[in-house]
Amino acid sequence: MEGQSTKWTFRGNELLDETAAVSVRAYLNMLYDHVNKDDQRPIIPLAHGDPSAFACFRTSPEAVDAIVHAVQSNEFNSYAPAIGILPARRAVAEYLSADLPYNLSADDIYLTVGCTQAIEVILSVLARPGANILLSRPGYPIYESRAVFNKLEVRHFDLIPEKGWEVDLESVEALADENTAAMVIISPGNPCGNVFSYQHLKKVAETARKLGILVIADEVYGHLAFGSNPYVPMGELGSIAPVISLGSISKRWIVPGWRFGWVATCDPNGILKKYGIADSIKNYFNIASNPATFIQAAIPRILEKTKEDFFSRTINIMREAADICYEQIKEIPLVTCPHKPDGSMFAMVKLNLSLLEDISDDMDFCVQLAREESVIVLPGVAVGLKNWLRITFAIEPESLQQGLDRMKAFCQRHSRK
Amino acid sequence: MEGQSTKWTFRGNELLDETAAVSVRAYLNMLYDHVNKDDQRPIIPLAHGDPSAFACFRTSPEAVDAIVHAVQSNEFNSYAPAIGILPARRAVAEYLSADLPYNLSADDIYLTVGCTQAIEVILSVLARPGANILLSRPGYPIYESRAVFNKLEVRHFDLIPEKGWEVDLESVEALADENTAAMVIISPGNPCGNVFSYQHLKKVAETARKLGILVIADEVYGHLAFGSNPYVPMGELGSIAPVISLGSISKRWIVPGWRFGWVATCDPNGILKKYGIADSIKNYFNIASNPATFIQAAIPRILEKTKEDFFSRTINIMREAADICYEQIKEIPLVTCPHKPDGSMFAMVKLNLSLLEDISDDMDFCVQLAREESVIVLPGVAVGLKNWLRITFAIEPESLQQGLDRMKAFCQRHSRK
Ligand SMILES: Cc1ncc(COP(=O)(O)O)c(C=O)c1O
Ligand SMILES: Cc1ncc(COP(=O)(O)O)c(C=O)c1O
Repeated sequence: MEGQSTKWTFRGNELLDETAAVSVRAYLNMLYDHVNKDDQRPIIPLAHGDPSAFACFRTSPEAVDAIVHAVQSNEFNSYAPAIGILPARRAVAEYLSADLPYNLSADDIYLTVGCTQAIEVILSVLARPGANILLSRPGYPIYESRAVFNKLEVRHFDLIPEKGWEVDLESVEALADENTAAMVIISPGNPCGNVFSYQHLKKVAETARKLGILVIADEVYGHLAFGSNPYVPMGELGSIAPVISLGSISKRWIVPGWRFGWVATCDPNGILKKYGIADSIKNYFNIASNPATFIQAAIPRILEKTKEDFFSRTINIMREAADICYEQIKEIPLVTCPHKPDGSMFAMVKLNLSLLEDISDDMDFCVQLAREESVIVLPGVAVGLKNWLRITFAIEPESLQQGLDRMKAFCQRHSRK
Repeated sequence: MEGQSTKWTFRGNELLDETAAVSVRAYLNMLYDHVNKDDQRPIIPLAHGDPSAFACFRTSPEAVDAIVHAVQSNEFNSYAPAIGILPARRAVAEYLSADLPYNLSADDIYLTVGCTQAIEVILSVLARPGANILLSRPGYPIYESRAVFNKLEVRHFDLIPEKGWEVDLESVEALADENTAAMVIISPGNPCGNVFSYQHLKKVAETARKLGILVIADEVYGHLAFGSNPYVPMGELGSIAPVISLGSISKRWIVPGWRFGWVATCDPNGILKKYGIADSIKNYFNIASNPATFIQAAIPRILEKTKEDFFSRTINIMREAADICYEQIKEIPLVTCPHKPDGSMFAMVKLNLSLLEDISDDMDFCVQLAREESVIVLPGVAVGLKNWLRITFAIEPESLQQGLDRMKAFCQRHSRK
């Protein structure tokens, strides 16, 4: 029924389409398309950030009970205040304060639909005309995409593999100018599996202070540290430079599907308030949605009642998996892992292309690996580092072992003779 | 510890701060601040859009059970696909198709964190440089604020009170140009309580087709119709011009706190696909968060198992409340309601300022009413119509009666002698 004469004026949005084309999701979809359907073996997914489907990573029963209790009470069917209900904000403040040298108050906490929305909130606030933001390379791509969509200019600093993926602070200083609003760090790290030490975070804070910028600390993997560096929240250095910590229950409680996170201003000197950032964060929620009220209502119980056992069990599995991963990778001559993962769920490994026969780059490696071995690994290009791979070890240890065995066989087959 | 020498570069975001200052929330906060704390009577809230706190508006037990069942299964702790899990998208497609002359498929459905996020999604997609959108006056302010934030130009067409708040289609034609992407209609209407007839929607569709624009139909109050006009979804006219329907379970199931909604492309001719809108909607979810997976998983049961009884009970209470509201307003000489509400939860009433002694405008009316009578009513200026009031009747009938009695006493006291 579309008439000849109708000239439709609307069009798709190029900015959204371009960023989607290079999203982790787009890479994964493409790789899954290359898996050989005749391969009888199970697909081994070493590219995801969500171990919740594996039996050994089931969330704590206390958390499930808290949700059931909240929804059955019928007391939390109403809209919540835009930034979240007070008991939940207070509970998050207490949860975070336990690791800080000062106390956060409920006023420092803004509840979000996962850490993903926390990223949306803060990049939307900072996206003033002409402003720029410093992101790490490699990094977590949603920062890039959201910044591009918000027309917030992105500049990249490096993480240095030889230094345990520490921030190249010299490059940070070289990049910043009077329009730089913030730098983003991720610790425990995605994609590198590193955990920044107190000493390094202090240097980050001092650099930020020198440049007059704030530090956005993505701590969605907070407490998932099992190596030599303990987890230190960036907020510990909040008196040197203002810190905005982004977090969620997705990773530590292994419930990424529950979509509950937060923005926390860790700023004992009140600089974020003084410069209008706190107000703008609050104001963003006037045009945004928020987590289900009954999920918010369950948060105090979830944060307070989850047993230490649950956390230590997860940490132990992760540590074991990281060990397997690191040791196995050592056995594969064509790839190297410069830094054994200390936290999060990932390791970055470098391809030695000159030793590979018929493989042109990381993308090609991942496509052929998917096709021949039904193993899915993320090409480094998806996280900003070409000719590297990001391997997830947060998977049942047996499957991990299998996946790495297949990868080894693949590399042997493709190594230059 | 902030040194003299540190020059912080970041600032709040003026766009967000400006829109927040004129949000419904800002008006309400201000009014509540004026309530006299010594007034022993309960505050009567006639300005909200959320009746869920009242016992008579409790949601159906089937809906609560569906959530409990989903979260207890431990099968829905994982990330969902960005646009939602298939069973939920299919269930929404079937739910909407029941009222359409053609069938939607799961591919037409994108799950959102309430209708609020649906608005965010579609305005983000349409916000290309230079584009504009047509919004109604009066209207729902989040459209304005999100458009302003996205730098999408807004142009206003009128709704005509004397014609049951129908769209002034002549003003629509006069406003549109080759950069106009869409017009937004809301039916059942917030703030006017009107329900557009099939005949009127057909004219809307024909106008849209003539102008080459798409119709965004906010149907968050879908099925909440209890007057002479039955609810007709705009999608019925989707073969004349492409329609994007926005909806949620917030209102019909009275669970606004559950934050579950959708974007539905109602476009049997595939024009939205052809022009890239469908892809861009999908791509927006690469940078956005989504509803909790277990809530998505509960949706098929919620949509299929809720008893007809529950809906008819709600409708009956709403009809009774609308009747009380309309009849009582008639008794108050200084305000007039030009159109008895047929749906949603609201009535718009006009202030006759010339008959009021010491009241300068709608804002002043609402402030003094809050102060003297502890009754909260939204000034029309908050929804784009100065010197009108928006009154919510979705409240326990007894309280509604009380609130209107107090408003009557207030008007009598302030009427010109
Ligand atoms: C570094 C980083 N930040 C944020 C997120 C998003 O977290 P959430 O699931 O809480 O939205 C992820 C998810 O993988 C992540 O790796
Ligand atoms: C017209 C209109 N659209 C959208 C919404 C937002 O709905 P939801 O609660 O599903 O986010 C509302 C809420 O009151 C509304 O009145």
